[in-house]
Amino acid sequence: MEAPGEAAGAAGLRCHHPVAKMPDLPFLPFCVLLGGLGLLCVAFVGAWCQHWRGGFSLDGSARTFNWHPVLMVTGMVVLYGAAALIYRLPPARRGPKLPWKVVHGALALAAFILAVLGLAAVFRFHNAHGTPNMYSLHSWLGLVTVLLFSCQWAAGFSAFLLPWAPNWLRAFYKPIHVFFGATVLMLSVASCVSGINEKLFFSLKNGTTEYKLLPAEAVFANTLGLLIILFGVLVLGALARPSWKRPDTDSPESHQPLLTAER
Amino acid sequence: MEAPGEAAGAAGLRCHHPVAKMPDLPFLPFCVLLGGLGLLCVAFVGAWCQHWRGGFSLDGSARTFNWHPVLMVTGMVVLYGAAALIYRLPPARRGPKLPWKVVHGALALAAFILAVLGLAAVFRFHNAHGTPNMYSLHSWLGLVTVLLFSCQWAAGFSAFLLPWAPNWLRAFYKPIHVFFGATVLMLSVASCVSGINEKLFFSLKNGTTEYKLLPAEAVFANTLGLLIILFGVLVLGALARPSWKRPDTDSPESHQPLLTAER
Repeated sequence: MEAPGEAAGAAGLRCHHPVAKMPDLPFLPFCVLLGGLGLLCVAFVGAWCQHWRGGFSLDGSARTFNWHPVLMVTGMVVLYGAAALIYRLPPARRGPKLPWKVVHGALALAAFILAVLGLAAVFRFHNAHGTPNMYSLHSWLGLVTVLLFSCQWAAGFSAFLLPWAPNWLRAFYKPIHVFFGATVLMLSVASCVSGINEKLFFSLKNGTTEYKLLPAEAVFANTLGLLIILFGVLVLGALARPSWKRPDTDSPESHQPLLTAER
Repeated sequence: MEAPGEAAGAAGLRCHHPVAKMPDLPFLPFCVLLGGLGLLCVAFVGAWCQHWRGGFSLDGSARTFNWHPVLMVTGMVVLYGAAALIYRLPPARRGPKLPWKVVHGALALAAFILAVLGLAAVFRFHNAHGTPNMYSLHSWLGLVTVLLFSCQWAAGFSAFLLPWAPNWLRAFYKPIHVFFGATVLMLSVASCVSGINEKLFFSLKNGTTEYKLLPAEAVFANTLGLLIILFGVLVLGALARPSWKRPDTDSPESHQPLLTAER
């Protein structure tokens, strides 16, 4: 994806016509808006499970399942988005990169742990009810996403925080890490949308108001789905904006791993 | 999203360490692979509806519904992807831009027409069965996607092919057009995934083998979902690759609209 500023800048360099420069949005107000939207997503998914789906427990019942959407949205969307955008924070754009690498890796690790707990919740619920695991497209996509994320984290940690990777390998791998980082977020959002849709078909049937009659719960959870999509699109747009990227003009320290091999 | 080549090139300029340059993938073999994958998606969705869902008709039955997945995947994913990548074809990278603008707009229009027919198919099926329209998250997201696409097409046509838009407005709007172009593709893929998942829950229940027992149809349609995702990710990756972008060093003709106002 190309960022608005990038193409406008490029157009300004290349063509012979008067060019309008895209106004440069300030990152911090955008960041506050995005943080608010992320919190709203977490609040919505929590309220859905608490108010309409009976709340939370660890007893293997549907209330155990309820941890699944909450942990996946919080981990794979909101915390993941925060980890992805950490280098765009103004303090992270100046000075040594290493502390921000650690924050980036730690936030991603927290997201990954929540995702694993979220998977554990749904497996425990299925197993307690004799329901097979891993049959729906949602489950296939979700597992592919978490597996890709685990490879992404392990490779990122090995290349950028451990001291063994030579610099040429780091430079080679960095764009791949960036590309798959955005891909995992897109897959996470698609997993959430298909999962919310699936859960509403399961939950809203005989006994309650059917999904197709659009009860309040359906409007609420559909809105949650749209908010998650908006969050994902805004994060990807922010990542693509060149003027918000960390200038990598860099002291050698920006290539300093967490542990040093010989130093 | 940042393309691999972009960041590698940037790293090469910026840091003081030996840098590995990403090997520059040739576009044409990639394009053949992507075209094959697109055709495979169309073949898969057609075979699913023909072999397992009873084929096609216009009588308002479930066989009318079957046009919906086929037209949406063909239009909103495969043709849309082709329209998005048209400027990356080697002949489009040289010489006048206007013919390629026309091809881009025509392919996008064809995609849009298929999408509208695909919506008509599902509305006709619902209406014939007294089923409400527009209640699931899939339907909300799908409609948002098609509406966004219609605005995108109308604005693109008005700005880039009609003669009225001043050059500063074209330059201002172009990056917005590029950003929403990628966004619509992401939303299309998420709509397809949620739709396939929903359809399998509807179709595979009492009377046939349930979805959760993973019959052959479920494996086939789940695989279709993963192929669509792969196609979308590859198109977005190709769009982001700077070395594949059309050099816009430009004759004034590249800003020539289809109809000229005073010329």
